[in-house]
Amino acid sequence: MIIIVKKEHEEKQINNLIKWIKGQGLEVDISNGQHSTILGLVGDTSKIDIDLVRSLDIVENVKRIQEPFKCANRKFHPDDTIVDIGGHKFGGDNFQIIAGPCSVETEKQIIDVAWAVKKAGATVLRGGAYKPRTSPYAFQGLREAGLQLLLKAKEETGMPIVTEIMSVNHIDQFKDVDVIQIGARDMQNFELLKEVGKTKKPVLLKRGLANTIQEWLMSAEYIMSEGGKDIILCERGIRTFEPYTRNTLDLSAIPLLKELTHLPVVVDPSHASGLSRLVKPLSLASVGSGAHGLMIEVHNDPKNALCDGAQSITPDQFDDIVKSIDVMLPLVDKHRDL
Amino acid sequence: MIIIVKKEHEEKQINNLIKWIKGQGLEVDISNGQHSTILGLVGDTSKIDIDLVRSLDIVENVKRIQEPFKCANRKFHPDDTIVDIGGHKFGGDNFQIIAGPCSVETEKQIIDVAWAVKKAGATVLRGGAYKPRTSPYAFQGLREAGLQLLLKAKEETGMPIVTEIMSVNHIDQFKDVDVIQIGARDMQNFELLKEVGKTKKPVLLKRGLANTIQEWLMSAEYIMSEGGKDIILCERGIRTFEPYTRNTLDLSAIPLLKELTHLPVVVDPSHASGLSRLVKPLSLASVGSGAHGLMIEVHNDPKNALCDGAQSITPDQFDDIVKSIDVMLPLVDKHRDL
Amino acid sequence: MIIIVKKEHEEKQINNLIKWIKGQGLEVDISNGQHSTILGLVGDTSKIDIDLVRSLDIVENVKRIQEPFKCANRKFHPDDTIVDIGGHKFGGDNFQIIAGPCSVETEKQIIDVAWAVKKAGATVLRGGAYKPRTSPYAFQGLREAGLQLLLKAKEETGMPIVTEIMSVNHIDQFKDVDVIQIGARDMQNFELLKEVGKTKKPVLLKRGLANTIQEWLMSAEYIMSEGGKDIILCERGIRTFEPYTRNTLDLSAIPLLKELTHLPVVVDPSHASGLSRLVKPLSLASVGSGAHGLMIEVHNDPKNALCDGAQSITPDQFDDIVKSIDVMLPLVDKHRDL
Amino acid sequence: MIIIVKKEHEEKQINNLIKWIKGQGLEVDISNGQHSTILGLVGDTSKIDIDLVRSLDIVENVKRIQEPFKCANRKFHPDDTIVDIGGHKFGGDNFQIIAGPCSVETEKQIIDVAWAVKKAGATVLRGGAYKPRTSPYAFQGLREAGLQLLLKAKEETGMPIVTEIMSVNHIDQFKDVDVIQIGARDMQNFELLKEVGKTKKPVLLKRGLANTIQEWLMSAEYIMSEGGKDIILCERGIRTFEPYTRNTLDLSAIPLLKELTHLPVVVDPSHASGLSRLVKPLSLASVGSGAHGLMIEVHNDPKNALCDGAQSITPDQFDDIVKSIDVMLPLVDKHRDL
Repeated sequence: MIIIVKKEHEEKQINNLIKWIKGQGLEVDISNGQHSTILGLVGDTSKIDIDLVRSLDIVENVKRIQEPFKCANRKFHPDDTIVDIGGHKFGGDNFQIIAGPCSVETEKQIIDVAWAVKKAGATVLRGGAYKPRTSPYAFQGLREAGLQLLLKAKEETGMPIVTEIMSVNHIDQFKDVDVIQIGARDMQNFELLKEVGKTKKPVLLKRGLANTIQEWLMSAEYIMSEGGKDIILCERGIRTFEPYTRNTLDLSAIPLLKELTHLPVVVDPSHASGLSRLVKPLSLASVGSGAHGLMIEVHNDPKNALCDGAQSITPDQFDDIVKSIDVMLPLVDKHRDL
Repeated sequence: MIIIVKKEHEEKQINNLIKWIKGQGLEVDISNGQHSTILGLVGDTSKIDIDLVRSLDIVENVKRIQEPFKCANRKFHPDDTIVDIGGHKFGGDNFQIIAGPCSVETEKQIIDVAWAVKKAGATVLRGGAYKPRTSPYAFQGLREAGLQLLLKAKEETGMPIVTEIMSVNHIDQFKDVDVIQIGARDMQNFELLKEVGKTKKPVLLKRGLANTIQEWLMSAEYIMSEGGKDIILCERGIRTFEPYTRNTLDLSAIPLLKELTHLPVVVDPSHASGLSRLVKPLSLASVGSGAHGLMIEVHNDPKNALCDGAQSITPDQFDDIVKSIDVMLPLVDKHRDL
Repeated sequence: MIIIVKKEHEEKQINNLIKWIKGQGLEVDISNGQHSTILGLVGDTSKIDIDLVRSLDIVENVKRIQEPFKCANRKFHPDDTIVDIGGHKFGGDNFQIIAGPCSVETEKQIIDVAWAVKKAGATVLRGGAYKPRTSPYAFQGLREAGLQLLLKAKEETGMPIVTEIMSVNHIDQFKDVDVIQIGARDMQNFELLKEVGKTKKPVLLKRGLANTIQEWLMSAEYIMSEGGKDIILCERGIRTFEPYTRNTLDLSAIPLLKELTHLPVVVDPSHASGLSRLVKPLSLASVGSGAHGLMIEVHNDPKNALCDGAQSITPDQFDDIVKSIDVMLPLVDKHRDL
Repeated sequence: MIIIVKKEHEEKQINNLIKWIKGQGLEVDISNGQHSTILGLVGDTSKIDIDLVRSLDIVENVKRIQEPFKCANRKFHPDDTIVDIGGHKFGGDNFQIIAGPCSVETEKQIIDVAWAVKKAGATVLRGGAYKPRTSPYAFQGLREAGLQLLLKAKEETGMPIVTEIMSVNHIDQFKDVDVIQIGARDMQNFELLKEVGKTKKPVLLKRGLANTIQEWLMSAEYIMSEGGKDIILCERGIRTFEPYTRNTLDLSAIPLLKELTHLPVVVDPSHASGLSRLVKPLSLASVGSGAHGLMIEVHNDPKNALCDGAQSITPDQFDDIVKSIDVMLPLVDKHRDL
């Protein structure tokens, strides 16, 4: 961490600051410039509150040099973390496809979709039981009953399942869930992150609506600091000024994350745009960017879906996407795990 | 709600959509244009999932006409809601000042600050017991012990208190807290909103880091749909591309909110910028914008604070701000409640 | 266009508004709801100033139904526009690669790079003569002398050239340039758009730093309304809150643009991130998203480049990217034009 | 400037970088850490291209310590710049109000508005002759004829005038204009900035739609580097994700700018929201934030305006705003110049 101190302040104040820094167990390098004094902090600065330092009257600016995440940092753990979900490996040169319906609706629906996506190449089943909705008047999911249906589909098809948790009160209900999903709106629900970390279960951590890559990795750090090790990051689009799409998928984040962290990262192309006809191009784009996998919403029953154009893609469209992905994987040095 | 349907689609599909809409208890006006057909939905469209409709293949665009919030909507409740906190009124032509330290640290600290801000004109005491921090390695607040210290300060000074909740598991601890604060990162923690709503206690609902005014009012709606009525909205800055400030205070939101909702709205100028020297100009700006109050961080013990330039303003600076506010209040048709 | 009029206003005011709309040559459908009256405008609303209408006291909201762009709108011109640049076709199922150095530096440099990228598969040569720089103290390009060097490289290699214009005063200098580039910062330099449109030359129109897709197409409309027909859109990343990358590449825009407009769209992966090691993953992602081409910065002389890690990729890295693209093109129904 | 170099790279590469830096006339402090080497650049780093350095393979990160603006930097010019416009002073403890119609329409209109706003307290007349419009089909202003009408109003009322320039080709037409306005969309039209700087005339420089404070000051630097000294900055709202307002007025920028630069800064509350009923609260908020003045759109003829609720406020409403401002000015240590 570099602290730029204003020149006009008294030496006594600067000395107080230096004393405080040393009290935190750090060394200080002092460099006097013409218009400012620069303090270079040497040691583990991850516990220093950068906002507190910035707010001091004598401080002109603070720049963090060292990333504040440690467990998630590739610098300290150069090898890729491989997360094993029921025998299916996320990370490294493996490529996995998670698929399933937006919401769990009925036993038949979830089991039928599960078989369909398994056949086309998905290795993990997704499905929403607890649904975060902007409006209290919108369908909130089948909740605990939805979890039971997912577990039946797991039993029936042998696919491991991933589904979203929305409250620390529900953790017990997730004991047979293979991967606990933390949704975008809960990415900084720190009490939930800690409790989920304590379970030591694999976690799929979605990026928040408007959270930076660094904040995202700090949320992974919350889970890891409680003992969780198996974290899969999931990019799902960020909020920008553009109104045509619900979110802007940030694919530049994928190669950057692979430099910054050893954790696997997948992309959810279904939520980014909110338009099913964008799922294929954004899936191929995600593969090109180097992602370790995809999470795609698939709906199996177009006849009963509202009109004949549902939000999710059909099993046939999904199958077509997987076939295209298979052509691309050698280009990005990955192979699909079957 | 207006649904624009693509012209090239078959009548059967459009009829299916119309049938589905009528099944939701709404009337449909149909207007045929040259390049598209426009369906006007008449009735209560707040339960219609706009994203679902938009995702249909035959739909070109959907525009919401009616705001999706009802309990919080001024259109249905034209009179200002007045929230009474220990005899101090928020809303209407009342102006209130909430003040106190960022974090509760010691009994002496919180009681001293409480007396100091009370003397200068604050009517409600704030102080963080549970602290949301980006890093798991940063100080997380005194937690339950901090709540106890706040309650002592309340007993001592007679000031009602407001403090942030971070988990549904802690609700019992808040039974003597006068106003439960929902922080920016929890604005869309829907399970927490519901549980807090069930307590029927007054709530200070901060705007999320990157949430629209409509989403903010929908979060108020979550609380109100569970029976909570006394909600104070709190603008605290939004996330933008500008790196000089931690957040961009959105004061245009204040007069807009006063049109859209009957709920009182206050401003937190301390968190917006992260710079104590911006607190005074942003406080005066907030009063000018028509806010019903302010929430300001005040620290009482500069000698023990890190160096002598703490993040928060001092009681003397706070006193100076209150004096300036008093000159301004008649201009905005408000009076300070004492 | 749909205008929602507040219910409480007098009929006389609403009638004035209706009269004014009819005076603009439009029909009006009136629909009376419980809380508001909805006016549906039928006819060509592209000349109606939506901000003016929204600002009226009696107007609650205005929603545009019809896109305001016409010449660029696929609805009115369903067939893909094919832009021919020296025999190389942009649009439809053609895929083109534009490549060259960031700035033109010397005759040898630009000619060497031109031969290198031509050999690897580029069909159009890029190179900056006039350089837009945030700082007046930074290198501003070789300007007119740089244009001359580009023209020499064109003569030598037979490659058509694209380079950026920054002032209406320089238009005469661009008469032998094959494609005039409008940079991101000039996307809404409307006087420049008009003058460039009058030349009828092909234009590569970059998206502005923080401009919506609709504003981008309206800027294309400025050029087209003056007679320019051959416009290639170029996505180059948008400004968001994320500090790790210089810009966030918006690949969701590519499939959306292909629905909204008949114009070809290419992607510039070099400027989006500012990091040369992201160029390959973002290039493959762009191909996956369905782009009609790429514009890539290539530097040929690593030995003389600052240290041995220049901003641009080398001809060898470029060659490797092109080989990967060739594998992907059949997946997106495109073929590389040679 | 601080350059963080990755540890794993060879010494030779680091030495090459150090050699290059020294070749730019700078000194280098080297500090070896455990995981990285930090280079501290001492001297005038304003000419160093930070993006170029960041793009080097061996560089992990670059942090600018010194602001890249010099002429506009308060550090080097501690005293407030006072810009004199026809005897009216902008900057220091002076407060000025610029007012007038959005567009110049007729001689009678501009002269009537001029007299009305002068009577109420405005000291400078504004009016759009060249109008930047998103759509080529919208009214583009009276252009040169509009300038003539403004000059007539100046002659008639004695008020100095400010109006927007949109092309380097029009500079001669602005020779009798008192203040040349650079609009938000042209804030980074660098060729225009240079040419306007060469005229040495006072400039009102609006902030770009999505430009940082630093970029804004770098644009002022463009003008100043050509000899322009009298620059008035004008905050007019920035682009965010919030759709309710056209822009988000960034009032935190005002006190920050007063620290960073010696140039005066005014606020345009009319363009920020696009809603006339927000002009008063945002005007008072701007005064509270410490601005040196306001630029307000006033329309004089509600009878002929479209319906009776035009975008701009009326002279009576303007007069009411000025009266409120006068009560506030002593609070912010300013006085209105008459």
